[in-house]
Amino acid sequence: MNKLYGYWRSSAAYRVRIALNYKGLDAEHVPVHLVRDGGEQHTAEYQALNASELVPTYTESDGLVLTQSIAILEYLQDTHPTPTILPYHPKERAVVRSMVQTIASDLHPLNNLRVLQMLAKMGFDDQQKKDWYRHWMLTGFRAFEALLEHNAGDYCFGDEVSMADICLVPQVYNARRFDIDLSEFKHIQRIDGHCCELSAFAMAQPEQQPDAGS
Amino acid sequence: MNKLYGYWRSSAAYRVRIALNYKGLDAEHVPVHLVRDGGEQHTAEYQALNASELVPTYTESDGLVLTQSIAILEYLQDTHPTPTILPYHPKERAVVRSMVQTIASDLHPLNNLRVLQMLAKMGFDDQQKKDWYRHWMLTGFRAFEALLEHNAGDYCFGDEVSMADICLVPQVYNARRFDIDLSEFKHIQRIDGHCCELSAFAMAQPEQQPDAGS
Repeated sequence: MNKLYGYWRSSAAYRVRIALNYKGLDAEHVPVHLVRDGGEQHTAEYQALNASELVPTYTESDGLVLTQSIAILEYLQDTHPTPTILPYHPKERAVVRSMVQTIASDLHPLNNLRVLQMLAKMGFDDQQKKDWYRHWMLTGFRAFEALLEHNAGDYCFGDEVSMADICLVPQVYNARRFDIDLSEFKHIQRIDGHCCELSAFAMAQPEQQPDAGS
Repeated sequence: MNKLYGYWRSSAAYRVRIALNYKGLDAEHVPVHLVRDGGEQHTAEYQALNASELVPTYTESDGLVLTQSIAILEYLQDTHPTPTILPYHPKERAVVRSMVQTIASDLHPLNNLRVLQMLAKMGFDDQQKKDWYRHWMLTGFRAFEALLEHNAGDYCFGDEVSMADICLVPQVYNARRFDIDLSEFKHIQRIDGHCCELSAFAMAQPEQQPDAGS
């Protein structure tokens, strides 16, 4: 059976959960607790699967081991193209991928758990960590909202769900969790609302996972 | 004419330069000086093209405006598949994309100019910035080296150039620029050497760009 190693609150794992649900694919969800005992992602056993010591990791029974949520999304799209999470035309697909990377490369990595832990170790207090988090969230969302201004319909790119929505929704979840005021982001809020009405997104929510609250 | 807005030392722009060269594609290189006058990427004119206020941006004469180096690489691959920078088989392509994201999402964003500027603004001194830079470089390269251990040949994935090499070489350039000891990374050093023998990579080097040294 295919497995998804993740953590209920990891927004990168959340992306893959949405994509699996949206494409109707099964995977055994294996929880990796990112905080308990210093973080289960740092055990030798997990490190052998994922040398980055991050979640998610996706495995298939033939031995395939894939790290990196965006690489996993692309793989699910390549191997199960219907329903699609990328537009057909190369220029449109490219715009969706820019949206994806605006979150996955520019925003999310800066606010990841390991980064906040490193900042604390280097002397940041709680308020400085909050300021840092908020700064990158707002910077990233402003860029994302500008892309939506040119491209959004009911969803991030026109009226079809794409990888961009799959990356946006977990990021909005993070923003709410850290009490960030999203009122300036009209498109982001509207699209998040549309997505959360879809069962693929709703079932992937952190609070719906077996390890929620742990 | 297609245009690539970049900066000689930007490793994200460097990736796109390699891909354009490798695929034999022309683009007018438009320099955006990331430091002069507080950074030309923050002008209203550039921000209208790239709301993230980052380089690179790739444009085509029909009005296409693409941000995010990885989205641009994927677009060049989609529209000019030969010579390819992704393996044919989905599982192999997925592994290359994991390598790409290990650099583009996990490593590079943490050491970007704007991040170092923010750390300084929040009180980090030069030594702390260096420690930060080195920490994430080594963390990222250790994960990347582990992926190479399973997959490398002459290049990152087997014996063909891929997006993984295109992301690795600019990162190695950064590491050398910051005097980071790479001796533990046997595969990374070996593959970087092979790539730099290829004219597509050599011509894309920062020092070969018209704005070099500016």
